Amino acid sequence: MKQNTNLKVHTLADIEHLKIHGRTTGSLSPLTLFWTGSAVELNVKSSELWLEVEADYDVYEPWISILINSVPVSRQMLVAGRYWICVFRGMNDRVVNNIRIVKDVQAMSGDPGCSLQIHAVKMDGKFLPVADKPHKIEFIGDSITSGEGSIGAKAEEDWIPMWFSAINNYTRMTADALNAEYRVISQSGWGVLTSWDNNPHGNIPDCYEQVCGLLTGAKNEAIGAFQEHSFEIWQPDVVVVNLGTNDGGAFQSPEWKDEVTGESHKQRLNEDGTYHEDDIQAFVDAAEKFLMKLRKNNQHAHLVWAYGMLGIPMMPVIYRAVDVYSKKTGDKQVSVLQLPNMTDETIGARSHPGSLAHEQAAKELTGYLKGILASES
Amino acid sequence: MKQNTNLKVHTLADIEHLKIHGRTTGSLSPLTLFWTGSAVELNVKSSELWLEVEADYDVYEPWISILINSVPVSRQMLVAGRYWICVFRGMNDRVVNNIRIVKDVQAMSGDPGCSLQIHAVKMDGKFLPVADKPHKIEFIGDSITSGEGSIGAKAEEDWIPMWFSAINNYTRMTADALNAEYRVISQSGWGVLTSWDNNPHGNIPDCYEQVCGLLTGAKNEAIGAFQEHSFEIWQPDVVVVNLGTNDGGAFQSPEWKDEVTGESHKQRLNEDGTYHEDDIQAFVDAAEKFLMKLRKNNQHAHLVWAYGMLGIPMMPVIYRAVDVYSKKTGDKQVSVLQLPNMTDETIGARSHPGSLAHEQAAKELTGYLKGILASES
Amino acid sequence: MKQNTNLKVHTLADIEHLKIHGRTTGSLSPLTLFWTGSAVELNVKSSELWLEVEADYDVYEPWISILINSVPVSRQMLVAGRYWICVFRGMNDRVVNNIRIVKDVQAMSGDPGCSLQIHAVKMDGKFLPVADKPHKIEFIGDSITSGEGSIGAKAEEDWIPMWFSAINNYTRMTADALNAEYRVISQSGWGVLTSWDNNPHGNIPDCYEQVCGLLTGAKNEAIGAFQEHSFEIWQPDVVVVNLGTNDGGAFQSPEWKDEVTGESHKQRLNEDGTYHEDDIQAFVDAAEKFLMKLRKNNQHAHLVWAYGMLGIPMMPVIYRAVDVYSKKTGDKQVSVLQLPNMTDETIGARSHPGSLAHEQAAKELTGYLKGILASES
Amino acid sequence: MKQNTNLKVHTLADIEHLKIHGRTTGSLSPLTLFWTGSAVELNVKSSELWLEVEADYDVYEPWISILINSVPVSRQMLVAGRYWICVFRGMNDRVVNNIRIVKDVQAMSGDPGCSLQIHAVKMDGKFLPVADKPHKIEFIGDSITSGEGSIGAKAEEDWIPMWFSAINNYTRMTADALNAEYRVISQSGWGVLTSWDNNPHGNIPDCYEQVCGLLTGAKNEAIGAFQEHSFEIWQPDVVVVNLGTNDGGAFQSPEWKDEVTGESHKQRLNEDGTYHEDDIQAFVDAAEKFLMKLRKNNQHAHLVWAYGMLGIPMMPVIYRAVDVYSKKTGDKQVSVLQLPNMTDETIGARSHPGSLAHEQAAKELTGYLKGILASES
Repeated sequence: MKQNTNLKVHTLADIEHLKIHGRTTGSLSPLTLFWTGSAVELNVKSSELWLEVEADYDVYEPWISILINSVPVSRQMLVAGRYWICVFRGMNDRVVNNIRIVKDVQAMSGDPGCSLQIHAVKMDGKFLPVADKPHKIEFIGDSITSGEGSIGAKAEEDWIPMWFSAINNYTRMTADALNAEYRVISQSGWGVLTSWDNNPHGNIPDCYEQVCGLLTGAKNEAIGAFQEHSFEIWQPDVVVVNLGTNDGGAFQSPEWKDEVTGESHKQRLNEDGTYHEDDIQAFVDAAEKFLMKLRKNNQHAHLVWAYGMLGIPMMPVIYRAVDVYSKKTGDKQVSVLQLPNMTDETIGARSHPGSLAHEQAAKELTGYLKGILASES
Repeated sequence: MKQNTNLKVHTLADIEHLKIHGRTTGSLSPLTLFWTGSAVELNVKSSELWLEVEADYDVYEPWISILINSVPVSRQMLVAGRYWICVFRGMNDRVVNNIRIVKDVQAMSGDPGCSLQIHAVKMDGKFLPVADKPHKIEFIGDSITSGEGSIGAKAEEDWIPMWFSAINNYTRMTADALNAEYRVISQSGWGVLTSWDNNPHGNIPDCYEQVCGLLTGAKNEAIGAFQEHSFEIWQPDVVVVNLGTNDGGAFQSPEWKDEVTGESHKQRLNEDGTYHEDDIQAFVDAAEKFLMKLRKNNQHAHLVWAYGMLGIPMMPVIYRAVDVYSKKTGDKQVSVLQLPNMTDETIGARSHPGSLAHEQAAKELTGYLKGILASES
Repeated sequence: MKQNTNLKVHTLADIEHLKIHGRTTGSLSPLTLFWTGSAVELNVKSSELWLEVEADYDVYEPWISILINSVPVSRQMLVAGRYWICVFRGMNDRVVNNIRIVKDVQAMSGDPGCSLQIHAVKMDGKFLPVADKPHKIEFIGDSITSGEGSIGAKAEEDWIPMWFSAINNYTRMTADALNAEYRVISQSGWGVLTSWDNNPHGNIPDCYEQVCGLLTGAKNEAIGAFQEHSFEIWQPDVVVVNLGTNDGGAFQSPEWKDEVTGESHKQRLNEDGTYHEDDIQAFVDAAEKFLMKLRKNNQHAHLVWAYGMLGIPMMPVIYRAVDVYSKKTGDKQVSVLQLPNMTDETIGARSHPGSLAHEQAAKELTGYLKGILASES
Repeated sequence: MKQNTNLKVHTLADIEHLKIHGRTTGSLSPLTLFWTGSAVELNVKSSELWLEVEADYDVYEPWISILINSVPVSRQMLVAGRYWICVFRGMNDRVVNNIRIVKDVQAMSGDPGCSLQIHAVKMDGKFLPVADKPHKIEFIGDSITSGEGSIGAKAEEDWIPMWFSAINNYTRMTADALNAEYRVISQSGWGVLTSWDNNPHGNIPDCYEQVCGLLTGAKNEAIGAFQEHSFEIWQPDVVVVNLGTNDGGAFQSPEWKDEVTGESHKQRLNEDGTYHEDDIQAFVDAAEKFLMKLRKNNQHAHLVWAYGMLGIPMMPVIYRAVDVYSKKTGDKQVSVLQLPNMTDETIGARSHPGSLAHEQAAKELTGYLKGILASES
């Protein structure tokens, strides 16, 4: 092998034209990518480019996808350690190429040891500015938004990072179609009030104002995951909330019991199989409160509750919550959209929406958001 | 990171149920994968699996794709060196998973240093038999068959391994649709008589009877690339020849001149832009001879000349060659199929067929081969 | 021309195995087809078949479509008069063929002279039983459900029967996909509370309990259009209500004024462009009342409010109405479904959903109703 | 019914801006439409329009389709007799509408009584010029080109006009996509040398130079069907020959015997199932002769032999014939194109290509002809 002797190392802090996607602590030494879809983006004129990554985990390893000029060309597991990855070789160094390295797996609330950090870039050319996109979208969701099952065979049943994708994902597809920057806040199994198994700690609203508050453990604390998030530096035009699927599932799941405190919780069904009105009201209250928190932190954003990729049992309740919120606050910048349901033809791995289901959802959501973004500008 | 202490190393020679796709020298210590689409396939019950690879190159690095249960989940560049790659972690070890690691780039006639070898597998479970498939297909072709441009953005122009794919490829798609094993013999720019630039050495027939005769250099000689290939152990039911595109291109290209010998060659156009009859005849003779060589080595195979993904200017000549061959030999097991032409909607990178064009070609070819395979059995 | 001398005339009353689709007065001498999608269906072994029709109109002529074995093969305008139409000739009379003659245009509230009647059938074979289908669906709607614009060029702007289709229609497509019998109650421009131009008489609920109560004039009275409809003989499993689009439009339209009584009506917008709460409440009240009327007359049916093919501005209000109705009555057999929005690619004539938009709506609705019908049986 | 008292009758000869598609005798009093796809086209500003037709037949009745602004809106059987058909009513008479009445069934060699004639137009507005299209295409074919089976259920087996369509037809689709005028010469079951059942009279070449020479009987003679066709007034840019399917079928069919003359004919198979070389040569000779006849009459046209919608067994022979013709004559304006094969998904009625198969063929053919038309202009 002929060594390329012209490569120079650039720490992230040294790179003038570095674009980072997703919430961060602000630190670049190293940069931690917390959420799925978080990414480093560069425009370069260079014949070769490497990335120094550091990955760790107790259980769930990180994966990344590499996009060259917006097209996915590589996807790989990152085993534990600190090392260099070659992004490309042999390219024409007089041509600008756009490079995006994307975290392909959600933040892992179940693995305090899981982390993905980026230290430096090595290349033989120069960096160029990455233009801002005209729109910004934040997506908040559960396993659907984490792309669980959107890659892999239908038969797959293991809950492992390999079956998560930020690329085969309606969030990426919608953002691409709208030429928008985007961020994702998501966690498999979580909801607005509780997780699918009635655990009241499995709710997104409580951790929404931290950088990545659903993580646990001393390492994540040290990295800064629990810092307050600075909303002012990235104010989205739209916040898409794709939650409710697990809140609906909780009604069908057994009671959750905290073994330590004895605390227990259960969203109850009536005898005729319908939802217990008190527990529905608890969801409505939680959703209303979450909308207030979203509005507080995203002052000019249109809030869109987009739901339905795995059925619509909670839709009436979501409409009720949005109605209550809107009436109480007078906030008109909030609406609900039903996403197309997964079918036998669009199912992916782990009984979750496959790539085709994400495409259909993205198409519907894109059409809807176009109207909103047009009326805003 | 928690180390998996149960992993055991198995050299390839130790693995009872190892399935290898593509021509090899027979050696497993290590195994060299020469051609695009060449692969190692395993059925395993294991929670984790690693592969020890050794890659080298002067210019063009190898890439691999990993398929789990027939679905592509990873694609990565292999930088130079000998090292372990983690294929999966955290899987249920009571379930059989099918693993295929595929060479994603063609054999590189232009880089004597390029090689990809596999030494061993490391895992914590056991190997199971991989069932034989009912059909065998050999594909012979040029850049189209090498999947040049079937991955990457349309704007890409660099001739680099990153833009080649054995997965976004009509060969894989056709074989999958027919439940067939397959092998690929292909080289970008090459033809039946000459390469696109009139170089008479750029022809596939001359190297067809060696394991991988289009490679060069002492290293490849040592590995065994120039050995005679043993046809008897893998007799295909169908040989698909997708050649002629570069032979047609040669008519439009300048004369080729060998600087050392002074030898030169040129397929000539008439003044009205049509092909010179003598040079057409030279192609017909070469094609006829190649068909004889194919028949000699593949005695029960149906020979299908499938052409047309980048236009059909050579189709009349291909039909003439097949007609002449069939009449002379009385061989009826030979036919011609026109593949659908690439369009503005199906173009990929480097002005070559994109993934959609390969899908269309695969669909047409699959339908055609179904008829042939049905009539044979 | 060789005359077929074997043809025999059968009045409808004489035909044992006659299947009629759509609400009727019960009379067969002649049979009046009122609503779009209404039809006569026959199974016959016959070489030839004619139908005696009688059509009339002042302004809007009727059209029919003919389906042979469920496939549309003819569509034609019916000019005024009483005459025979040849449905087929030259068929094998030992084979059973299924014939359906469908009214392709809505009941015309704006033309008291418009009528379509069927007197008799002429053929040379015999009639066979038409099996009942396992499900029954009633569709209630406006221009979308009347198939306005689902046939014809995008440029068409005339409001004429030619641009209406019961065939390129989500009602037919959904019923076919579910193997269901169906009926349609629909009128372009009409709503739950008012028509698109704020006319409070343009509401479907008021005429729902008559055979075809939105017609006018002495001729229609004589035919029996204003009779009370007998619900008990055809109880649907599902009632799909696709109304609200014109109620939403009314907010954007000028006040309606009755020149005779001086009565006027207007659904008002607030200054910020949102809907006036009092007028929203009037819609909610009307929708709630309509649901009660539907439940009274369709006692075991699931009521599905399906809305969204021309935008979803009224969706929160529809959800509110359904929520109120469900809470007050304890009725759980009622739900809301969002249908896919028309796009630039799926638009038809007269700025209305085209055939493709109907296909998409049918696909989504079919998937949803499958779940409901499965849980019922 | 309110009578429109403003309608005026115009005989065809009186209409200044009348556009006729398809070969005719030149007579307008009345105009006979012989071939499928033949049509009358008008641009009108009128509120209403009627057409006076005269239809007759012993066995096979004519059908027409009506296109308004290029979109099919009506299709109907024409029973025997002379009568008026209403094309539209109630249109805005200040807007130009394009009207095309198309013969939807092939010329009927098997029914000397079958005819379709047009006498006059009745309307209340005015005629406007119909612009010429930039290209002209002639299609020559068999049942595929006649659209046999491109409408109707898959189960249909009767050979009747109802299952023929000039609209669900690759000829119309290709011409529309290329913005071309077109004519069709076609007959089910016929070939270049013989019909599917070895009848040597069932060949298109022999009747090619007459207006509609495959008809029979005194009535057709009186109408002028057997007149010499005047090629000079409509010289196509491309002649598409879609023949060979029945010539191939003849090899699989029993001998044909003329009961009167005792003459018999049979295209023979060898014992191994391949085609007998002598009979292949007879086809090649016939095809070569036909190409000469086509060239003689269409001097600047590109001749495209397009074949393959029902398999490609004759393709090598077609290529041989074209090769021989081209070499002998030096004619370079001739080529062969393989059309996509019908599949289980695209099959229509009577085991013939359905609407989807015609769409696929049209797409492939359109792409190919675009290249030819571009290089010509």
